[in-house]
Amino acid sequence: MGIREYGYKIGSGIPGAENSITDVPGVKVGHTTVEHGDNKTGVTVILPCEDVYGQKPVAAVYTLNGYGKTAGTIQIEELGVLETPIALTNTLNVGKVLDGLVEYTLQECRKRGRTLTSVNPVVGETNDSRINQITSRAVEKEDVLQAIDHADKAFEQGAVGAGRGTVCFGLKGGIGSSSRVFAFGGREYTVGVLVQSNFGSMEDMMLCGEPIGQRICEAVRPKEMEDKGSIMIVVGTDLPISSRQLRRVLKRATAGLVRTGSFMGHGSGDVFLGFSTGNCMKEKKGEELIPFFVFPENQLNLVFRQTAEAVEEAILNSLVCAETDCGRSGEVFHSLKEFL
Amino acid sequence: MGIREYGYKIGSGIPGAENSITDVPGVKVGHTTVEHGDNKTGVTVILPCEDVYGQKPVAAVYTLNGYGKTAGTIQIEELGVLETPIALTNTLNVGKVLDGLVEYTLQECRKRGRTLTSVNPVVGETNDSRINQITSRAVEKEDVLQAIDHADKAFEQGAVGAGRGTVCFGLKGGIGSSSRVFAFGGREYTVGVLVQSNFGSMEDMMLCGEPIGQRICEAVRPKEMEDKGSIMIVVGTDLPISSRQLRRVLKRATAGLVRTGSFMGHGSGDVFLGFSTGNCMKEKKGEELIPFFVFPENQLNLVFRQTAEAVEEAILNSLVCAETDCGRSGEVFHSLKEFL
Amino acid sequence: MGIREYGYKIGSGIPGAENSITDVPGVKVGHTTVEHGDNKTGVTVILPCEDVYGQKPVAAVYTLNGYGKTAGTIQIEELGVLETPIALTNTLNVGKVLDGLVEYTLQECRKRGRTLTSVNPVVGETNDSRINQITSRAVEKEDVLQAIDHADKAFEQGAVGAGRGTVCFGLKGGIGSSSRVFAFGGREYTVGVLVQSNFGSMEDMMLCGEPIGQRICEAVRPKEMEDKGSIMIVVGTDLPISSRQLRRVLKRATAGLVRTGSFMGHGSGDVFLGFSTGNCMKEKKGEELIPFFVFPENQLNLVFRQTAEAVEEAILNSLVCAETDCGRSGEVFHSLKEFL
Amino acid sequence: MGIREYGYKIGSGIPGAENSITDVPGVKVGHTTVEHGDNKTGVTVILPCEDVYGQKPVAAVYTLNGYGKTAGTIQIEELGVLETPIALTNTLNVGKVLDGLVEYTLQECRKRGRTLTSVNPVVGETNDSRINQITSRAVEKEDVLQAIDHADKAFEQGAVGAGRGTVCFGLKGGIGSSSRVFAFGGREYTVGVLVQSNFGSMEDMMLCGEPIGQRICEAVRPKEMEDKGSIMIVVGTDLPISSRQLRRVLKRATAGLVRTGSFMGHGSGDVFLGFSTGNCMKEKKGEELIPFFVFPENQLNLVFRQTAEAVEEAILNSLVCAETDCGRSGEVFHSLKEFL
Repeated sequence: MGIREYGYKIGSGIPGAENSITDVPGVKVGHTTVEHGDNKTGVTVILPCEDVYGQKPVAAVYTLNGYGKTAGTIQIEELGVLETPIALTNTLNVGKVLDGLVEYTLQECRKRGRTLTSVNPVVGETNDSRINQITSRAVEKEDVLQAIDHADKAFEQGAVGAGRGTVCFGLKGGIGSSSRVFAFGGREYTVGVLVQSNFGSMEDMMLCGEPIGQRICEAVRPKEMEDKGSIMIVVGTDLPISSRQLRRVLKRATAGLVRTGSFMGHGSGDVFLGFSTGNCMKEKKGEELIPFFVFPENQLNLVFRQTAEAVEEAILNSLVCAETDCGRSGEVFHSLKEFL
Repeated sequence: MGIREYGYKIGSGIPGAENSITDVPGVKVGHTTVEHGDNKTGVTVILPCEDVYGQKPVAAVYTLNGYGKTAGTIQIEELGVLETPIALTNTLNVGKVLDGLVEYTLQECRKRGRTLTSVNPVVGETNDSRINQITSRAVEKEDVLQAIDHADKAFEQGAVGAGRGTVCFGLKGGIGSSSRVFAFGGREYTVGVLVQSNFGSMEDMMLCGEPIGQRICEAVRPKEMEDKGSIMIVVGTDLPISSRQLRRVLKRATAGLVRTGSFMGHGSGDVFLGFSTGNCMKEKKGEELIPFFVFPENQLNLVFRQTAEAVEEAILNSLVCAETDCGRSGEVFHSLKEFL
Repeated sequence: MGIREYGYKIGSGIPGAENSITDVPGVKVGHTTVEHGDNKTGVTVILPCEDVYGQKPVAAVYTLNGYGKTAGTIQIEELGVLETPIALTNTLNVGKVLDGLVEYTLQECRKRGRTLTSVNPVVGETNDSRINQITSRAVEKEDVLQAIDHADKAFEQGAVGAGRGTVCFGLKGGIGSSSRVFAFGGREYTVGVLVQSNFGSMEDMMLCGEPIGQRICEAVRPKEMEDKGSIMIVVGTDLPISSRQLRRVLKRATAGLVRTGSFMGHGSGDVFLGFSTGNCMKEKKGEELIPFFVFPENQLNLVFRQTAEAVEEAILNSLVCAETDCGRSGEVFHSLKEFL
Repeated sequence: MGIREYGYKIGSGIPGAENSITDVPGVKVGHTTVEHGDNKTGVTVILPCEDVYGQKPVAAVYTLNGYGKTAGTIQIEELGVLETPIALTNTLNVGKVLDGLVEYTLQECRKRGRTLTSVNPVVGETNDSRINQITSRAVEKEDVLQAIDHADKAFEQGAVGAGRGTVCFGLKGGIGSSSRVFAFGGREYTVGVLVQSNFGSMEDMMLCGEPIGQRICEAVRPKEMEDKGSIMIVVGTDLPISSRQLRRVLKRATAGLVRTGSFMGHGSGDVFLGFSTGNCMKEKKGEELIPFFVFPENQLNLVFRQTAEAVEEAILNSLVCAETDCGRSGEVFHSLKEFL
């Protein structure tokens, strides 16, 4: 049940059927939640299409705050394509999850009879150490394979997968998603967003313009309120746009983020990753140019607005879907839904 | 009279004595408003200190939306210093104003007995063609010299100088300013902001969380509502920070911008320029290292928040200070104060 | 007479008919040399096609050393297109030349019945103050219009236009050009280069691997040898490539530059500008996607190599085409051809 | 025995005592070479100082060609510091090596009584699949720990560690190093370079201006000659410079690379990483500014030239130190020394 079901409508755009990133045709999401002993963490994967390595959908990255450990960004910037699913996890687990994506791609290439000697795995992260015993890097290679294997159009939101241990505005954070559909040139397109929310100071939280954070503060009286977290935002679409344009779209995710109350704290990294299945850069052998479509630049406002709205809604969804949980030092991280 | 005098308090920080960028010690601002026939435009200059070329205060630039014509950015990025006052004007006038800054610097160097063969003039712009006959490039070199000559700690806000012809949220935009003072390590520091506001769609405008734009829309019934404008944001401070850190601070200006309702339209360019008089890179002849101070990274949140607040307030100040005016095709651009 | 006519062959590629940037179909170059009193300077314009503003050819910029004053770069980076011819001039003249490009575009738009309120003029520069009395900014708006008016497929190289007063490796620098043609997918494409050379320390100069600079030093015994200059490199092509790919191509211009002996001195700015007439982003009104072609990424080596070669040759051409001249303090800047 | 011992002198600068990156005071290098079955690969670590996480030496990154998988770059760009040793390995092993650096930092922090919940491991790579069975990711976490443990001022060059399986100009590549010492302001400073060479087409190779690659081609008659490799360049120094300045220094590494014959092929990634122990950003608790020194910008040419020279020499050293080896499909990769 998302924020919309609580009576809050974000913006004027129209969500897709699932109001999630999987409304973008072909996109799937999977989680492995890792929960044993002190470990409450996991991995979430977003698959843009069946054969990512073979299709090479257009991709872009925008680093709002680079105080993070996201891997795979320099190749996206250089070549403007994605070669693997995007995986999200906790900060110290990037290495193992990265290796899991290599393993996955090797298996896929073997199946398809391709020889692989290089691939650019993309792994984002936020720091879930307030809830999870982060130093044990509990997410294993196999967890990545399993998350991909279980990936589907339907997926859970809240404190699952990479969102299992995150905290947002002093509340329980997690994985949230939302989407917008709109017509352009007689066809329907979708922009979908998935976030791993782990940022913000409680006092700053805004809900559709209402300073709800201050109200919650009075109820909850949190001990600490520094904004030391971060957020991963993944934007997927089937719009035919170039990587340069997609990066422009990603920047507008900032508007959605700020609308929930963020001041973009020094904290740790805010990295936005985008892909479009509307343009692919499949490698070819011969001397052949690759046909492509570019979105008319002067009509991008349409996309900017829908993206900002979907980001705001995805963040709020991550909060209402997450159940109240306890931190490692005993503090309670409430679900937003307790205050609605 | 700023937004604060209308009873709206932006954030929790404390404004400086003037609540303007000139609260930063040594900073001055000057305008030349050019108004004759169809021309309603001008130039605004921000002087970080007396001898900018000689002092070379630390500087940074963050380009939120590069669909603009700001000149002087690549050298700021390479060397991290400012060599001239920052001038703001209309889009097509950048060339003439740039030449005015060269003229000014040549005159200054002559006075000081320096030989000058190179200087990096910094000129920002927004497009004021809805009110101003922009193609005549009415701002002359002499207007730049005059604006610098008249620069002072006290300066007018609203529809003056580079803000004479701008439009913001379908209302009359202009020049606005604000500041924040705070203690650090037993000393007081100031962050000051000056904006040239020329962006936004009326329906989107927010005032401290209230969707005031929708209310104004009902009253005003504007014909057109696309966000096709832009904003120049100048952030000055006396904090000892590096250009890398200053760029991080500039990015947080985005939060202030979004809080007023912006979706960061495709429109035209949003460029943020920053300088700090707390660190200077005066050239020396001998083999001498330059002593410097860097702000402790993990305490920058303090500066981020104050900057975001001051940007939000400066934008609102630009709107309440500007008087209602008519556009070139007869439409009325109201002052925000009519609706408060 | 270029370096090739002196018996030096740069690389293995095949130059076009003119061995100049105007081998790219549609490209024209024009100069105005300004020579009176102490002024020995000028402006050089490169026109990618007839109606640049209307066509919006794909463009890119790579800033090797941003200690320069090139205007127009941020919009190229944001939108990936060119809206005006590229003009080159001396450092302090950027403002006036920029205004000249605005004037030109206004005139063109009037002719075509278009209303223009915004345009992104692109002006590069190097510092010719060793030969030219730079502070008088002797290049006027009218000189820009004249250079465009005189632009042609045939144009002079050496100490003309923006190259009138430049110095390179302690020799007389200037404007130089070169091109390469090659087949791809059954069609012939051209990469053309034009440089304004003003960099390098004499002792470092290399000619096809030979340390000719050291030999010239012994003959000439120059007083000063610091590399304090800069270079503007313009790369034009009719290859269907994206702005991202074009930027990758531009980076490889560095190889051509280094092969002539440059260590990329702190000096002043090295900025590389590129355009492709093979993809245009003409604005459209309706909801229509823009068809585009992208070059197969894994075959770009072909283009990289041809570009590096053409840059090396264009620099050497600028040197052999320039006649020996005197500096403002009496020093002689020899033509390279005296030493061949 | 380096290239200098074969009678080739690169540039005019003076190498340090070891002519290696460990001439920079405090710097150590260690390898683990992994050789079993089809695996001929490894890991090389560069330690800037004893307690990298605690000291946070200034750092910078320059991505010449982002078609690579280097991890840890976005935080270096944001914060300008290094938190771990730099590790180099093969392309598909980045994940495991990254996890090894996390493990190492956790162990170090435990020893020092620090709690660690976040760290930014920096791992570079090139693709050694022509010699190494790359898909098995044979470098384990323990190999990283061992390489760090064995790190010393003295270290082997050539086909060891991360250079075990690399190929450069169709010859056997590997790890190479070089340094330059120079006086500034009465003190002596060092710039040191370490490379993992894996790039270039044989025909292009240059040795001090001589096209030695063409001569070797005739002798060796290689089947394939595309430049599809990459290079990692690490630059360390004890100069007090800022991260912005260090990035400018890193860019000049390109000159050294081009001088060996590179055209900067599309191939895979060329990433340059730099650190300076001359400025550290140790975190502090109180409200204290961090004192810092910046190098006088106008004297950086000195550093640029020394760095370019040291990079050229380090690449050549990697080639003469590597012994002839066989590729996985039987081709021979000769040592450069066979042709001197």
